[in-house]
Amino acid sequence: MPAAPLIQPRTLKGFRDYLPETMIPRERLIDTAKQVYRSYGFSPIDTPALEYLEVLTGKGGDETDRQLYRFQDHGGREVGMRFDLTVPLARFVAQHVSELGTPFKRYQIAAVWRGENTQRGRYREFLQCDFDTIGTRGVASDIETVLVIHDLMRAIGFERFTIRINNRMVLNGLLERLGLGERATAILRALDKLSKIGPDKVAEEMMAAAGASAEQAADVLRLSALTGSKDQMLQQLEPLVAGSDIGQEGVARLSQILAGVRAAGVADEQLALDVAIARGLDYYTGAVFETFLEALPNIGSVCSGGRYDNLAGVYTRQDLPGIGASLGLDRLLAAMEELNMIGRVRTPADVLVVFFDAGHLNDYLRLAGQLRRAGLGVEVFPEAKKIGQQLKYADQRGFRVALIAGSREFQAGECQIKDLQSAQSETCSLANGAEAAIEAIRRLLGA
Amino acid sequence: MPAAPLIQPRTLKGFRDYLPETMIPRERLIDTAKQVYRSYGFSPIDTPALEYLEVLTGKGGDETDRQLYRFQDHGGREVGMRFDLTVPLARFVAQHVSELGTPFKRYQIAAVWRGENTQRGRYREFLQCDFDTIGTRGVASDIETVLVIHDLMRAIGFERFTIRINNRMVLNGLLERLGLGERATAILRALDKLSKIGPDKVAEEMMAAAGASAEQAADVLRLSALTGSKDQMLQQLEPLVAGSDIGQEGVARLSQILAGVRAAGVADEQLALDVAIARGLDYYTGAVFETFLEALPNIGSVCSGGRYDNLAGVYTRQDLPGIGASLGLDRLLAAMEELNMIGRVRTPADVLVVFFDAGHLNDYLRLAGQLRRAGLGVEVFPEAKKIGQQLKYADQRGFRVALIAGSREFQAGECQIKDLQSAQSETCSLANGAEAAIEAIRRLLGA
Repeated sequence: MPAAPLIQPRTLKGFRDYLPETMIPRERLIDTAKQVYRSYGFSPIDTPALEYLEVLTGKGGDETDRQLYRFQDHGGREVGMRFDLTVPLARFVAQHVSELGTPFKRYQIAAVWRGENTQRGRYREFLQCDFDTIGTRGVASDIETVLVIHDLMRAIGFERFTIRINNRMVLNGLLERLGLGERATAILRALDKLSKIGPDKVAEEMMAAAGASAEQAADVLRLSALTGSKDQMLQQLEPLVAGSDIGQEGVARLSQILAGVRAAGVADEQLALDVAIARGLDYYTGAVFETFLEALPNIGSVCSGGRYDNLAGVYTRQDLPGIGASLGLDRLLAAMEELNMIGRVRTPADVLVVFFDAGHLNDYLRLAGQLRRAGLGVEVFPEAKKIGQQLKYADQRGFRVALIAGSREFQAGECQIKDLQSAQSETCSLANGAEAAIEAIRRLLGA
Repeated sequence: MPAAPLIQPRTLKGFRDYLPETMIPRERLIDTAKQVYRSYGFSPIDTPALEYLEVLTGKGGDETDRQLYRFQDHGGREVGMRFDLTVPLARFVAQHVSELGTPFKRYQIAAVWRGENTQRGRYREFLQCDFDTIGTRGVASDIETVLVIHDLMRAIGFERFTIRINNRMVLNGLLERLGLGERATAILRALDKLSKIGPDKVAEEMMAAAGASAEQAADVLRLSALTGSKDQMLQQLEPLVAGSDIGQEGVARLSQILAGVRAAGVADEQLALDVAIARGLDYYTGAVFETFLEALPNIGSVCSGGRYDNLAGVYTRQDLPGIGASLGLDRLLAAMEELNMIGRVRTPADVLVVFFDAGHLNDYLRLAGQLRRAGLGVEVFPEAKKIGQQLKYADQRGFRVALIAGSREFQAGECQIKDLQSAQSETCSLANGAEAAIEAIRRLLGA
């Protein structure tokens, strides 16, 4: 019988596999994020990958709609794959709010899908890593959101980063005072380009697209020209929003955020006021945050978010204000790679038990069990092969220690613990089981 | 302007949300599984939710094909959502084997989708939790697979469970000796019904469907009538497979598995030989495993797997033998719920800092920060509200400790630590920051 033709093994265009060397740091990052979220009382939730199409398109813009993976399911229902975690969160909270109660704090780390143009180097499947506090306008949650971002960045291993903070109410208050409240969107759209096109072009656009006067445009741009310390900047803001309740509240809340974040122990140099950032023009209504790495400012914000007035207005009449942020996992991993923060490791275990004497399999298994019960990660090579071949395997995977013993060693009641970085070996007695070996391995891993 | 009509917030038929009280134990179980997998050197991988349809249908049976979520993507490609993790693993290994090298040990915990009939109480989206060792026939990996299952069950919190072990080669050897090798599938299909229909009906089916003689059927059934200890059973197997190389190898490997698993420290009562289990008739070729809870045998196996000769034959001519198993996450969670192993908790944090004096927000934040740095999970209530309301919130969520302090306490340099189970309070000095409070909380949580 001739062999059946093979199917070519390949991933779908726009999608990718995660091999161990990329998945290990990715999983570590996810674990770290979960730990930080949990330490603030955010609870995990999960929602389906598929939703009724009308649920997904209720709020998405036109571009999102075009990128949606949609089809009919087996029952003829129009369905789509989620393209973010915010729409499912809104649907989830609207559906379960009476059971959940408020305030409700959740995190969700899950894949989303967008049929994007892959020429921009983007993938059509990626993880989002969101946390939100729903059902409160308290400034305490604004402060806590900054604290979570801070603790996340530290826990991941970053020390030099800046969290840029603004409150949209400051901008809105200024525009109100200038009589530009109705044209806020066009003004903010122009202002958002400040770092790209500079103040002159922004002023031009404000005049052309939003009908602002030269003086009004200059007043708005004054926001981005504040100088001095954060406290001095806050003082300069006050006259700019004088007479606008919303603007004054915005400045007061900014001031409270700064004070609270400092009280909780965040170093002042990790915070910056940036009253020109607007983010998500139609969505955020209060505090907004962006986070930049000092070493790689050009990759953009690695953790962003803000406060919104009404999460779930398309699904419920209940008022659901909230605040949240999202960790840019892929961007952060790319940065960590560029900054050499990720070791080239393809195994989650540190110790390889070399299996070269077939008659001693049970001894290897016994030792490995003892090492594992002491909390060590241990792989036993599955076949009796030459030591050299197994050490090459250990080297390729990134094991740090090898345990080597053959008939001679077992007879003498000892084993070799080999440091795979220095290639130095140490003889350990097996008189007290694996105790001496465990101690030697711990010493090597601690070093 | 009249309000826009609302979209009804609901999950798609056959899908479900995970609220905190179900997601917290689920996440804990997943974390435990990952820890155990990693401790044996299994590496995480991930593959896309969507694959080319031809990749997915290459190996699936007709029923699987019918249940596939399939559609055309934006580029007109025929695609499908993965319905298990084995087909993607086969595709993944075939595609990357030169980079991965062998032996290759991976775990993958991810959602899969099947448009199943929901009347059976099944969901159309569920998690699979698989681990496999690819590229070796070594009995060491058979043993290790049992050890991983054992450690998983223990780490999850089970003490009374049995791992039932068989090797398909024993059955195949017996059938070969009886001259029934060609009719193995029909014989095994009948044998698989033993626990349901009893030996007489199984014998009838073997004669009717597989053309076995009464004597041959009785010989096959002798396999399931072995008695005594596992070692005695192995001895009784030997004459049954005498003269069949494959049968003798099967018995030898079973014997090696038992010896190896015992050497690694597994209690003998957690292992059983069950030479009648066949599992996945067309797929497994060597060792097979099932795991039963003593308290709930009727829910079926909670962790099953086995050895296969050729993982990826539809994608590559390279020989890729392997062995693996899959933890039945949903079944296990249902069992844990039934056995009261899961607390009713809706928060991952233990401590609620009650926020009732608006003027002291920064003090609450400072204390919470100190507690978190000591490794405690702490939520600060986001708004200054009455203590009673916040304690009710704490009770509903399952917080265990409340930290309470108002102007009077802060002036006196102290705070109250309240045990929310006993409702008893203790006064702690704030003279050394939160040190005394941390100690009191640790004492309560340890108790």
